[in-house]
Amino acid sequence: MSTFSNLTARGGLFVRFLQLSQVSRTISSSSSMKSKQSLVGFIGLGNMGNHMARNLLKKGYPLVIYDISKDSVKKLQEDGAKVATTPAEVASQVNRLVTMLPASAHVQEVYTGNNGIFSSVQKGSLLIDSSTIDPSVSQEMAKLAQGKGATFIDAPVSGGVNAARDGLLTFMVGGSETAYNLAKDLLSSMGKNVVHCGTVGTGQAAKICNNMLLAISMIGTSEAMNLGIKLGLEPKLLAKILNMSSGRCWSSEVYNPCPGVLDGVPSSNDYKGGFGTALMAKDLGLAQNASTVTKSPSPLGSLAHQIYRIMTNSGYADKDFSSAFKFLQDKKLNS
Amino acid sequence: MSTFSNLTARGGLFVRFLQLSQVSRTISSSSSMKSKQSLVGFIGLGNMGNHMARNLLKKGYPLVIYDISKDSVKKLQEDGAKVATTPAEVASQVNRLVTMLPASAHVQEVYTGNNGIFSSVQKGSLLIDSSTIDPSVSQEMAKLAQGKGATFIDAPVSGGVNAARDGLLTFMVGGSETAYNLAKDLLSSMGKNVVHCGTVGTGQAAKICNNMLLAISMIGTSEAMNLGIKLGLEPKLLAKILNMSSGRCWSSEVYNPCPGVLDGVPSSNDYKGGFGTALMAKDLGLAQNASTVTKSPSPLGSLAHQIYRIMTNSGYADKDFSSAFKFLQDKKLNS
Amino acid sequence: MSTFSNLTARGGLFVRFLQLSQVSRTISSSSSMKSKQSLVGFIGLGNMGNHMARNLLKKGYPLVIYDISKDSVKKLQEDGAKVATTPAEVASQVNRLVTMLPASAHVQEVYTGNNGIFSSVQKGSLLIDSSTIDPSVSQEMAKLAQGKGATFIDAPVSGGVNAARDGLLTFMVGGSETAYNLAKDLLSSMGKNVVHCGTVGTGQAAKICNNMLLAISMIGTSEAMNLGIKLGLEPKLLAKILNMSSGRCWSSEVYNPCPGVLDGVPSSNDYKGGFGTALMAKDLGLAQNASTVTKSPSPLGSLAHQIYRIMTNSGYADKDFSSAFKFLQDKKLNS
Amino acid sequence: MSTFSNLTARGGLFVRFLQLSQVSRTISSSSSMKSKQSLVGFIGLGNMGNHMARNLLKKGYPLVIYDISKDSVKKLQEDGAKVATTPAEVASQVNRLVTMLPASAHVQEVYTGNNGIFSSVQKGSLLIDSSTIDPSVSQEMAKLAQGKGATFIDAPVSGGVNAARDGLLTFMVGGSETAYNLAKDLLSSMGKNVVHCGTVGTGQAAKICNNMLLAISMIGTSEAMNLGIKLGLEPKLLAKILNMSSGRCWSSEVYNPCPGVLDGVPSSNDYKGGFGTALMAKDLGLAQNASTVTKSPSPLGSLAHQIYRIMTNSGYADKDFSSAFKFLQDKKLNS
Repeated sequence: MSTFSNLTARGGLFVRFLQLSQVSRTISSSSSMKSKQSLVGFIGLGNMGNHMARNLLKKGYPLVIYDISKDSVKKLQEDGAKVATTPAEVASQVNRLVTMLPASAHVQEVYTGNNGIFSSVQKGSLLIDSSTIDPSVSQEMAKLAQGKGATFIDAPVSGGVNAARDGLLTFMVGGSETAYNLAKDLLSSMGKNVVHCGTVGTGQAAKICNNMLLAISMIGTSEAMNLGIKLGLEPKLLAKILNMSSGRCWSSEVYNPCPGVLDGVPSSNDYKGGFGTALMAKDLGLAQNASTVTKSPSPLGSLAHQIYRIMTNSGYADKDFSSAFKFLQDKKLNS
Repeated sequence: MSTFSNLTARGGLFVRFLQLSQVSRTISSSSSMKSKQSLVGFIGLGNMGNHMARNLLKKGYPLVIYDISKDSVKKLQEDGAKVATTPAEVASQVNRLVTMLPASAHVQEVYTGNNGIFSSVQKGSLLIDSSTIDPSVSQEMAKLAQGKGATFIDAPVSGGVNAARDGLLTFMVGGSETAYNLAKDLLSSMGKNVVHCGTVGTGQAAKICNNMLLAISMIGTSEAMNLGIKLGLEPKLLAKILNMSSGRCWSSEVYNPCPGVLDGVPSSNDYKGGFGTALMAKDLGLAQNASTVTKSPSPLGSLAHQIYRIMTNSGYADKDFSSAFKFLQDKKLNS
Repeated sequence: MSTFSNLTARGGLFVRFLQLSQVSRTISSSSSMKSKQSLVGFIGLGNMGNHMARNLLKKGYPLVIYDISKDSVKKLQEDGAKVATTPAEVASQVNRLVTMLPASAHVQEVYTGNNGIFSSVQKGSLLIDSSTIDPSVSQEMAKLAQGKGATFIDAPVSGGVNAARDGLLTFMVGGSETAYNLAKDLLSSMGKNVVHCGTVGTGQAAKICNNMLLAISMIGTSEAMNLGIKLGLEPKLLAKILNMSSGRCWSSEVYNPCPGVLDGVPSSNDYKGGFGTALMAKDLGLAQNASTVTKSPSPLGSLAHQIYRIMTNSGYADKDFSSAFKFLQDKKLNS
Repeated sequence: MSTFSNLTARGGLFVRFLQLSQVSRTISSSSSMKSKQSLVGFIGLGNMGNHMARNLLKKGYPLVIYDISKDSVKKLQEDGAKVATTPAEVASQVNRLVTMLPASAHVQEVYTGNNGIFSSVQKGSLLIDSSTIDPSVSQEMAKLAQGKGATFIDAPVSGGVNAARDGLLTFMVGGSETAYNLAKDLLSSMGKNVVHCGTVGTGQAAKICNNMLLAISMIGTSEAMNLGIKLGLEPKLLAKILNMSSGRCWSSEVYNPCPGVLDGVPSSNDYKGGFGTALMAKDLGLAQNASTVTKSPSPLGSLAHQIYRIMTNSGYADKDFSSAFKFLQDKKLNS
């Protein structure tokens, strides 16, 4: 990380200096003109990543992309992205690179595998990983990046596919203050909030904690709605009461799991779309690993994990995670 | 309930009729002049009840009161309340009566016991129970009241001792539309919201569902805050991130259980004041009974019940329920 | 209970005295000749009760029976039982009576309803309830019986339909030492073990505690077997290892939930027969009520309750309770 | 692993061949005379390891030992063991080596670290790890060993300190049939049962599954005993009833957590000795990792993990794991 450290030591003069000297092989400037002229790498063009990459293209960033799926690549190629055949080929052409991958194992492979990013990463590069993975893997990647003279930060997102499409994601960034400032411009092109959480791994930590609490609240809201209805309360009225009382939460207000309470949410569309149960189970697994490693008890988070795991095994894998409401219902009564 | 039904059948003429004829032994009018002239009964002057009764006095309602504690009675007597020596003595003098008692057993005793309300209740009386109890006990009391020509409604409250003192409670009312309308004036003198939930018992149902979700969210928030801190996040920053994301809930925003995040909440005052863990355990026991009776699964509500029970047994009984945060912490590290 | 007390005070002379004097309206003697001559009542001829009643007939006890199902009654009538048209009609003819009913509400109805047992019970009668119900309901019935000069004891059973058929049940008896001794002869005709647990209600308490632990062990065994298999262990070998180690329990040894490990158990017959999931959920509901009332935490018992409730709601109601193994499995892999 | 494979291919002639040819640097023969002449390595002389090593010495195996604690080393040195200053120094002198370490991280360090076993392991060596660790770490070590021409097997134990002292451990062995046969002689000198579970990692899998079920049964037994006592049952009688019924398990029969029920168990000695709560929490963490990785739901195992984690954080870390009974009790009543 020597190059990077030297640069940051220059303090306030940093941006101006870069504009004047046109130094290549450094972390690119936050100047909007400059940044839009140098190539940016993007690896991982799935449900989320393809929207994020497209938003970068729209904002004027020239991209070089990679994904194992030819189809995903083709669409962005038509929109003007340059295509690489390996992560290494991406890394050799850029000094800023975003990865958006399914899980820890993919991140390890894409960064450290043969033809991985680290095999050809340029000194001074900024590597931004927006995948949701184990914080300790983020820290491991950061250490390896440092050994190559590059900087790795974690920047997982909150907000689903629609927020990715509309550029409304929230990024939770773990890394130094300097790295955060350098990444901000790029991330702001894909989201509305870019929050600096602390050192490397804390972006993942914030994401994991939020999703654990979200899962708990969602199942809790499902239990409360189901019980209240069985006790004779009208669903919309019950939701209204919860939302004006201390039971109020994002799941009861914005994403109510009981069909018919809100329009435009998955519960009113047979739990299609949204954030799948299997993905929530994965995030809760990360939370449990983190709990075990840090010896932090999380009894409700742990039970939420188990419930989403059982749901995943019982036909709910691709349903939105608010289908916990349906899972708890008496199916004999509803068939 | 014949008197009551007859009266309500008179529709719009009801209030005027009462003002003219000064009929006693009927449910008193909603006319504010009238209602403030006839005696109102109040039984149960504990932490909540004494504030509620005082607010009625302040708003001009003459009161006749009863409590087993002489001290509680004395203070309100000094403020102008008339004192009775049994619930029956209260009931014989009023046609509107509020009860605020600790649990189902007390309600059964005060209403059906020797010298209980039902032994001398006046025909046409409106009996408002603001205790938090089993909805089936509310329904049983309503049936017995009907047999005496009186009307019983459940109107449990949300909001703690401060809300009771400041007249800012929310009342969740279970009973007929007519009974709700008759009670509204009185309840509005003690709270800011009076919500009609449905038939008798649904006020309790709404209260129980809200508190179950509250308990789940509070423990969930405690787990997320504790885990995040162990993972290196600064508590206030973590709370801010949760509150701008999908983990947001009343417990994270308004009543954060981690000391130092918010001012003026129990967590920043060694968990003193607020809503005690033993009381939360009691409410969760009601939720579990309701779940069992209606065959509604509530895995997280059930585990929250167990956690608050263990806490109650382990020295947290009188601490605010947000002390779940402390219970989960590693005490070796904090001692 | 005066008659009963007087009799028991006679100590060792009691049996002889009864044989000589042929006193009616007393608790019948434990002499086998005598007891087989006086009518015994039996109410509740379901899956368990019909076998229990038939065993009494086989052992020479003349029976007068009642059940709401005409079919159940008819079969035992063919075997020689006398039929009554109400519980009261049974009670008026006997001084020993066994009830075997589904739940607390049925017991309350059969004992205290119109045409119920208490409307015509004979002084000195011994009323044996083998239903599994709330211990507090047993105690309430015992009190009411005492008021009628009769004795009520609780004697719930362990062992399923096969044990009922083969006379191999275990009875857990709550009542006085004297009442226990008087009931022993009759109960021994239907079971192999008759255990005196303590005062009225303790039979239910023992039953409830056993079944709570059974449910916990069964789900625990299911989790351990499922996890071990996923980790590469052969099911029979894993069961063998558990059974020679500290994980050993009745569920792993005698009633293993993994298909193919043991012959002749429900898991090897598509979970048919045995003890249904819905019945287990009911017993666990009783355990939870008892936990709540006595303020005894039971986190695993409570979660086991929720799991069996979700299973009951998800198509497992009539499957044996060892189908927890199947519920936890990944159904995507097995379809 | 070539040497090893060649040898095993010789089938029945293997033992005799070795005796005649005195080939060094091969896995030593199972002939008892021979095996007792070649040095055996032992690394990890903690509470369990020091007893196990001493039993090998007693049975005539010359040992070379290593531990970071000088004290542990000194005692065995006095008993005749040769001392090495690094794991590498042990490995260079032996072709059979036993490790008994606290957790996965220690195993990784001792095998792969600087001066670790792999830095000087001899071709054809048999490496037996009796630590309880993550099965995937066992598999990783086995792969690395294979690369060095050595064989690694996992052989975790069941049975506590007393069983280690008395040579009564059960070993659960994961490795090839051949490796198992070669290890059997040595392991039998330290235990009474040596069970072959399957390929590498299945020893750990069996251990983890057993301990998960044990933890569940222990907490379940604690809940049932505590509830039953609150309902009026005498503890010894309740234990007797459970043990003759379907609730029976190792925890209720052999290691009852309620003080006074059994003599000579930790519960009757203020929960001193036995298997510490913190160690159980560690094993349950391994079970949860394995559950997450294999996507096997374990709701009760997961909750047991959380309970032992909370207990560990609340002053029970060094108490026997049967202290779950005490943790659940109402301490207000017992103080």
